[in-house]
Amino acid sequence: MELLKQRILNDAKVKDDEVLKVDMFLNHQIDVELLNEIGKEFRRIFPDKGITKILTIESSGIGIACITAQYFGVPVVFAKKTESRNIDNDVYESQVHSFTKGITYTVRVSRNYIDSSDNVLIIDDFLAKGKAAMGLCDIAEQAGARINGVGIVIEKGFQDGRNILEARGIKVESLAIVDSMKNGNIIFK
Amino acid sequence: MELLKQRILNDAKVKDDEVLKVDMFLNHQIDVELLNEIGKEFRRIFPDKGITKILTIESSGIGIACITAQYFGVPVVFAKKTESRNIDNDVYESQVHSFTKGITYTVRVSRNYIDSSDNVLIIDDFLAKGKAAMGLCDIAEQAGARINGVGIVIEKGFQDGRNILEARGIKVESLAIVDSMKNGNIIFK
Repeated sequence: MELLKQRILNDAKVKDDEVLKVDMFLNHQIDVELLNEIGKEFRRIFPDKGITKILTIESSGIGIACITAQYFGVPVVFAKKTESRNIDNDVYESQVHSFTKGITYTVRVSRNYIDSSDNVLIIDDFLAKGKAAMGLCDIAEQAGARINGVGIVIEKGFQDGRNILEARGIKVESLAIVDSMKNGNIIFK
Repeated sequence: MELLKQRILNDAKVKDDEVLKVDMFLNHQIDVELLNEIGKEFRRIFPDKGITKILTIESSGIGIACITAQYFGVPVVFAKKTESRNIDNDVYESQVHSFTKGITYTVRVSRNYIDSSDNVLIIDDFLAKGKAAMGLCDIAEQAGARINGVGIVIEKGFQDGRNILEARGIKVESLAIVDSMKNGNIIFK
């Protein structure tokens, strides 16, 4: 997606050759106009009219998923990372390790909001080692739902998330694939 | 907002006379069509053309803020609750106590994304004792930004959040104000 790649080149910052900071437009301050273009692109890439839900994970996935959901006419369900007394006890859960934050957390989705009649599109901001996406796939599979695919805004093409997902037969589409960030130079695939 | 009140009466569940569960349409599964009506209503209630940013807090505020921001044509900034190596060190921060979760956390906004030229609309899903909204106001004030107002989807009218905010001269508008939830009966103001 050219508009997104240009925005990354113009604004994103590379830290330590591995961390791509896009908090100026994607995951701290959010450019909602750009998200609308992202949402339209996801609709184009995942044209299946049978998609019933968009599944994402808090927090950075939520805004992207909500704006995107407008183009699919379906609700969003987001997996929660923390225990809260406001979530049902009756949940699907999976373990997700965050290399960025250096912790493993339990992600949960209430059994009320995904079931075997669902055909879910999984949306997230980043794909790196694939842990968050795999956790969401795991939850969708526990629910017996069909996984239509995984839609990612920015993929780190030099990490193995895509391989892990594709090895499980899951379709992965990323709007921008970063192949290298050596010395602060962002090179797309 | 009649549509919202009807939805609460139809779907929401009361727990322990104080907790209103709306995770079937607002903060776990998200009805994006309803959010669009909520966004339009916030635009009607806060007509100021000078609003420059919508400020909210992760996670439940993000979807509401993003959909609403489409009607204002401005970016969203969401305060983060957890330390992450991906946030700038140069942040505004405030302490927020969550009675729902029983913890106090530090909320942070990068100094890059709010400044004294901003006129911010604060948006959140719930107003109860006002701690999250006060934390966001505190951050906006540290930045020297003007606070246009606080827009809330569901206010617990039997708690003192509104009084605390109004005592600081802040305009509060809620789309549904619940006056009582005794014995599971939801009564609006």
